[in-house]
Amino acid sequence: MSEERARTLGVVLFPGFETLDVFGPVEMFGSLPGAVEIRMVAERPGVVQSAQGVAVHVDHVFADCPRLDLLLVPGGFGTRAEADNTALIGWLTERAAAAERAMTVCTGTALLARTGLLDGRRATTNKMFFDWVASHGPRVEWVKQARWVADGRFVTSSGVSAGMDMALAVIAELWGQPLAERVALATEYEWHRDAGWDPFARAHGLV
Amino acid sequence: MSEERARTLGVVLFPGFETLDVFGPVEMFGSLPGAVEIRMVAERPGVVQSAQGVAVHVDHVFADCPRLDLLLVPGGFGTRAEADNTALIGWLTERAAAAERAMTVCTGTALLARTGLLDGRRATTNKMFFDWVASHGPRVEWVKQARWVADGRFVTSSGVSAGMDMALAVIAELWGQPLAERVALATEYEWHRDAGWDPFARAHGLV
Repeated sequence: MSEERARTLGVVLFPGFETLDVFGPVEMFGSLPGAVEIRMVAERPGVVQSAQGVAVHVDHVFADCPRLDLLLVPGGFGTRAEADNTALIGWLTERAAAAERAMTVCTGTALLARTGLLDGRRATTNKMFFDWVASHGPRVEWVKQARWVADGRFVTSSGVSAGMDMALAVIAELWGQPLAERVALATEYEWHRDAGWDPFARAHGLV
Repeated sequence: MSEERARTLGVVLFPGFETLDVFGPVEMFGSLPGAVEIRMVAERPGVVQSAQGVAVHVDHVFADCPRLDLLLVPGGFGTRAEADNTALIGWLTERAAAAERAMTVCTGTALLARTGLLDGRRATTNKMFFDWVASHGPRVEWVKQARWVADGRFVTSSGVSAGMDMALAVIAELWGQPLAERVALATEYEWHRDAGWDPFARAHGLV
C-alpha cells in the first residue's frame, strides 16, 4: 500500500437506495484488509430498506456521524424524494466538501449536484435517467459518455454497476494500482480500467 | 415475462458472508418488478455481519422460513465455520432439494457440496480457494474453468462477481432472455453471457 493510515468510508442510506450502488463499492473498499472502515449513515436510526427490499442496519445518524475520509452516495428511486430533503442535502453539503473523495453512483449524482459542489465541474450519472439528474445541476458540466468522471475530490459514476469500476479506480489512486488489481482478481471482477468505456450511453440513446 | 407467478428467493446469511456474493444477485433478481420476493434467512434472528462489515437484517430463521422457489448460498470466509454447522447444512439439504433452483456463489459451493446434493453433478466455485471447496465434495465433478455451471436445478458460480452473471442466466431461463437483457441494461452491467468465460481460472493458475 502507498499509505497505511486507515480511512473511514461513510455510505449514505435512504429508503429506496439501489442495492448494488452501495454494495458493489462496499465489496471493493471492504476487501482492503484493515484499510477502510465502512459506516452506514442515514437520517434516522434503525434499518433502511433498499429498492430491492434489503434491510440494512444504520451505524450513525447524520448528527452523530464521525469524520469521513470517503463518502459514497448511491442512487435508486429513493433519490426522487431525497433531492428535496434539506436535512440530507445539508449534511451532504458539509461532508462532501470535507471528504478526501466524495463519490456517487447512478442517480446519487443528483443529490451531490443539489449541494452545488459540482457547479463548474465535470460529472456523469446513470444513462437511463440522465436528463432528470442533469436537471438538478444546471451549472454542472455533464459528461454523457463516461463510466465515471473524476474532477478534484468529486468522483461521479454511471449506472449501478459502474460504481465497482469507480471504486477500483479510487483504490488505485489512493492505495496504488497493484492493490486495486489484487482486489479485482480476488473478486473475479472484470474491471473496466478505462473511465471512457461506456457502451450504455449509446444503448440508451445519449450519443 | 414468460411466467407471471411471483417467486420467493431465500438468501442464506451467516457471519462473514461475502457482501457482493449476496447483493450482486439480489440486485438482478430484485430488479424484476413484482416477480421475486427476496427473504434473508439465517440460523438466528437479528442482524448478520458480512465479511466487509455490513449488518443485514434477517427476515426469517431456519425454523420459520416459508417455502422457497429459489435459494442463494453466498461464500465468504464465514463458510469455513459453516461447513461444519449441522443446523445450516441440514436446513440447506432440505431446502436445496426442494427449490426450483439452488444457486451458489464463490465458496458457498462448499456448503452445497456438504449436503451431498452435488454428488455426481458438475459444479464450479471461486478460483482462489478451488481446492479447499473441492475437498468438501469428493464425488462432485468439479469444473475448473467456468463462470458458472448449471446441472439440473443446481447452479454454482465462480468467485464473487460471477454471481451476477449466473443470476442473469437464471433470469433468462426462468423469465426469458429479453427480460434478462433489460435488467443488464438498466443496471449498466456488462453481462458475460457465456458460462465458459473465465479468465480467472488461468489467472489463479488452475488451467
